[in-house]
Amino acid sequence: MEKTNIAIVGLGTVGTGVARLLLDHGDRTARHAGRTMWLKKVVDRDLGKHREVDLPEGVLTDSLDDVINDPEIEVVAQLIGGLEPARTIMLSLLEAGKNIVTANKALLAEHGAELFTRARELGRTIAFEASVAGGVPIIANISQCLSANQILSLEGILNGTSNFIVTQMDEKDAPYDDVVRRAQELGYAEANPAMDVDGTDVAQKLAILAHLAFGATVNWAEIPRVGIDGLDPDDLQYSRQLGYRIKLLALAKLADDGLELSVGPTLVRIGTPLAEVRDAFNAIRVIGDAVGPVFYHGLGAGQNPTASAVVADLIDTAVGRTRLTFQTLEYFSIDNPPRVKLRDAATLLGRYYFRLSVANHPGTLAAITAVLSKHSISIASVIQHEPDDGTEHADTVPLVIMTHAAAEGAAKAATKEIEALAAVNGPVVRLRVKD
Amino acid sequence: MEKTNIAIVGLGTVGTGVARLLLDHGDRTARHAGRTMWLKKVVDRDLGKHREVDLPEGVLTDSLDDVINDPEIEVVAQLIGGLEPARTIMLSLLEAGKNIVTANKALLAEHGAELFTRARELGRTIAFEASVAGGVPIIANISQCLSANQILSLEGILNGTSNFIVTQMDEKDAPYDDVVRRAQELGYAEANPAMDVDGTDVAQKLAILAHLAFGATVNWAEIPRVGIDGLDPDDLQYSRQLGYRIKLLALAKLADDGLELSVGPTLVRIGTPLAEVRDAFNAIRVIGDAVGPVFYHGLGAGQNPTASAVVADLIDTAVGRTRLTFQTLEYFSIDNPPRVKLRDAATLLGRYYFRLSVANHPGTLAAITAVLSKHSISIASVIQHEPDDGTEHADTVPLVIMTHAAAEGAAKAATKEIEALAAVNGPVVRLRVKD
Repeated sequence: MEKTNIAIVGLGTVGTGVARLLLDHGDRTARHAGRTMWLKKVVDRDLGKHREVDLPEGVLTDSLDDVINDPEIEVVAQLIGGLEPARTIMLSLLEAGKNIVTANKALLAEHGAELFTRARELGRTIAFEASVAGGVPIIANISQCLSANQILSLEGILNGTSNFIVTQMDEKDAPYDDVVRRAQELGYAEANPAMDVDGTDVAQKLAILAHLAFGATVNWAEIPRVGIDGLDPDDLQYSRQLGYRIKLLALAKLADDGLELSVGPTLVRIGTPLAEVRDAFNAIRVIGDAVGPVFYHGLGAGQNPTASAVVADLIDTAVGRTRLTFQTLEYFSIDNPPRVKLRDAATLLGRYYFRLSVANHPGTLAAITAVLSKHSISIASVIQHEPDDGTEHADTVPLVIMTHAAAEGAAKAATKEIEALAAVNGPVVRLRVKD
Repeated sequence: MEKTNIAIVGLGTVGTGVARLLLDHGDRTARHAGRTMWLKKVVDRDLGKHREVDLPEGVLTDSLDDVINDPEIEVVAQLIGGLEPARTIMLSLLEAGKNIVTANKALLAEHGAELFTRARELGRTIAFEASVAGGVPIIANISQCLSANQILSLEGILNGTSNFIVTQMDEKDAPYDDVVRRAQELGYAEANPAMDVDGTDVAQKLAILAHLAFGATVNWAEIPRVGIDGLDPDDLQYSRQLGYRIKLLALAKLADDGLELSVGPTLVRIGTPLAEVRDAFNAIRVIGDAVGPVFYHGLGAGQNPTASAVVADLIDTAVGRTRLTFQTLEYFSIDNPPRVKLRDAATLLGRYYFRLSVANHPGTLAAITAVLSKHSISIASVIQHEPDDGTEHADTVPLVIMTHAAAEGAAKAATKEIEALAAVNGPVVRLRVKD
């Protein structure tokens, strides 16, 4: 039987999972790849640290050169996070003739064009299924399985940490800080979860998906994004009363005049599939013009689900499928102009949820609704309760307004004017509502 | 740009959809395939019939020889249903050097080994994404995307017609015959829907999936199967009261002593994803040992979703990915012994729902529960209502019993004994309950 020699660079959580799958399930992998998938080297900086996988004699090394200078190693799972030294290492591996499999979405979102161009020049490939949604094979599904379609829209819950936090806040009526602490104890959130909860991670994944699905060349940092780090349990509770749950939603939607992209906490109607995605799960709803809606749901992170995606890519690369896809689709090619431009955010239509703290006296609601009316924003529903005992000034009450479709620019301008009203205390909470 | 010449054999609903996608969206298809996908010939027996697609001059023919004798045609979408002449035509096309794309699950379930062996001998490929679950790309997902996994189980709603009928019966409390008539009017059911509603179609699809996911070589006719054609609205209603919906479920589950396969109306807990699959949608829940649970949901039939799967296969075949997958995986190879045997149905453990019509006098429940107890079947819940006015004899009442896990053999034997009790009228309804 033929043999493909493989190296892993970076023996963290995912690297350990990949090593275990290759070492413990060689028969299965060989059957699915039509050849032996042989783990020849594992590179890790720290040879002394405790490892959760038994590597055969001679496999572990702290020298990248042991991979670079070994012409027998054809494919490398490059599993180092962050931008540097990950970028430099990937370029060195490509120069040395290796095909790459990676899970590093930040690197692709930031340096995709450079890395893919260099790979093409050198006749090498980069596979990146594990970079978005972990075990949910959304990259292959968009690139191959749905290739007969023009994708029309894509809505996703793409960050397991955020979704775990929001689910726990929602189901336990617990404040953000408490839930983050619990998520850290359970291993669902890192010591510094900033990139997960502030929308950065989701924007990077959305930039990659938008490129594959729409041919958009988009700087992830330009995607309008709001995280869940400022989310108030009150908003989860009012949303439930209105029949919605709040999810950190990535949205890409094609219109005649361009592509809409956004990341933010969004009200999703209870009972629809995306609203019922709980805890650390990810999900993506894709609409294609031929296939209609297709919904994917699975574990978006974690050792084994991510390793499952990496090993599938290692097999595809060893079999030669990746090369064909890579040659055909020309991802991140600087020769291909973007096929679609981003829409002006101010003209985007959407429904909105507003929560305000207002003076409990006559004329308040009239003043607020007059502002909305001036900006052609029509009201769909309103919640106003009597003041809570003690927790708020008796003369201040919460007011929740859900609108019909309105332009983002109008909603923004109205928010500013409403905040300036004497009857309104503090900032207005404004959230998107999914159609 | 390179060009791949394509032919369609059979211009029915799906063939028309495929022709439209190729003709109307040539730019897109070329971009996704890296070459022009050129529709050179369409073979249809009846040149005179009304067609819903405008074919360019010279494309339509009633002679298969125009395809067989044209060496420029490399790939053929063979879209004729049934076993013959579909089998003979496919063999002729393979002999003529064509690669095949098909949606014909009955043909693959019945003659897969013969056709795939012949294709391999001739160095040709057969792609069949459209044969299972229409627009849901489950074939590629099991064969490639989840290739790092041992699939542990697979649960699917694989027949859109049946699911439409069951959903309508459930939501409208309507009897089977009325709903079938409505489904026929709406185009969701054929004039003779027997194969869709009696479980045949689902068993054929499950046989294909079981081969891909578990290496099982299984005659579809040997899969225990029950259809929805005998389903009583009463059972849908009692199930709802117990917190379940009834779905026509295909199940494949790996255990130490073999593979369990079954098709039948099954109680699925309300709120779980499979229970919420409505109307003509299909869904599949796959559990892999690395990836965990992955859930897929989409349109399982219809012109465009099925055409989406066929065109994706045409692209994969033109690009060369199909050849690599086909060579590697050796599907339906007679040289590869099956890797798993079917479990003895009598030993399978499962929960059951029983509905009986019983005499409304003392001792009845005692007699029935004594039989269950004798067969070590433990009761989880019971519904017994007062008799309906008029519709039933006042001395007969319905009795519904839901059990804990019990062996299929024991459940069957108990059913027989219960039916023989003097206090029980007519046959007992026995349905599986999903774990």
